[in-house]
Amino acid sequence: MTLNLEAKKILLRKIPHGLFICGVKDEKNEVNGFTASWVTQGSFNPPLVVMAVRSEGSSHEIIKNTNKFSLNVLKSDQKDLAAVFFKPQVALGSRFEAVEFVLGDLGLPILKDSVGGVECAVIGDVTHGDHTVFVGEVKTAYLNNDVEALNLNSTGWNYGG
Amino acid sequence: MTLNLEAKKILLRKIPHGLFICGVKDEKNEVNGFTASWVTQGSFNPPLVVMAVRSEGSSHEIIKNTNKFSLNVLKSDQKDLAAVFFKPQVALGSRFEAVEFVLGDLGLPILKDSVGGVECAVIGDVTHGDHTVFVGEVKTAYLNNDVEALNLNSTGWNYGG
Repeated sequence: MTLNLEAKKILLRKIPHGLFICGVKDEKNEVNGFTASWVTQGSFNPPLVVMAVRSEGSSHEIIKNTNKFSLNVLKSDQKDLAAVFFKPQVALGSRFEAVEFVLGDLGLPILKDSVGGVECAVIGDVTHGDHTVFVGEVKTAYLNNDVEALNLNSTGWNYGG
Repeated sequence: MTLNLEAKKILLRKIPHGLFICGVKDEKNEVNGFTASWVTQGSFNPPLVVMAVRSEGSSHEIIKNTNKFSLNVLKSDQKDLAAVFFKPQVALGSRFEAVEFVLGDLGLPILKDSVGGVECAVIGDVTHGDHTVFVGEVKTAYLNNDVEALNLNSTGWNYGG
């Protein structure tokens, strides 16, 4: 059995993905965040979301240590903001200088200018490969604007395959 | 801390989702399948996919027992086929009377008329709530037609929130 790598790439890139800003806060109360794309729902009751996070990033370790994260849904015209949270940052949390945010009930960053955001408590994970799959229970939800969300396909970027 | 259920529903429904036919085969070599929507990627290397499956379905138990599943990517004009695999079936596997398929190297159904399909070996799962989150390593990939894939939003259906 051999894996056809080209077919695999084409097929995995057909999975629709969004673009979200994941927010975290470490034990020193420093916020950090990154652009997440590999997100899906994991249950209705309780409401679960699933997010795969690159193992090398600084936020990955913070989620492992704190067992919580926020997920902010970007508006369809916020591609530039998604780009800010993709790029390397000069210091932990400095990407958040680009946006206004509040802290939710779990103490996690919720962007003021966005569709809205949820805060999640990690209830399980699968660590295998270059990402960790975190499963989080949605504990709070803050809706700012019920407008169309940004999706990966519309940006012309690829993340997957 | 109270969860705003309406905000939660609106925000979770902003997560883009596709529509896939998940195929399984039980210990008696009977094939079965269902329409899956909560799917995302979980790693580049090895290539992992993540799929949440309703705990009550017959395919759920088969995946738990066999630790493998296929995921077929539907073409944008195959909404009717997705509907067939949503509905209750008269007997295990009878939905597959509606389509031609071959068996991949892992013995799992790959639809002949589709964008293509992958076969996955389960490497981990998180069981919590009304679905199980399965993480599978992509072992084979069969590309039929590199055309636009069906997505949930275009169908007018909701599954999430």
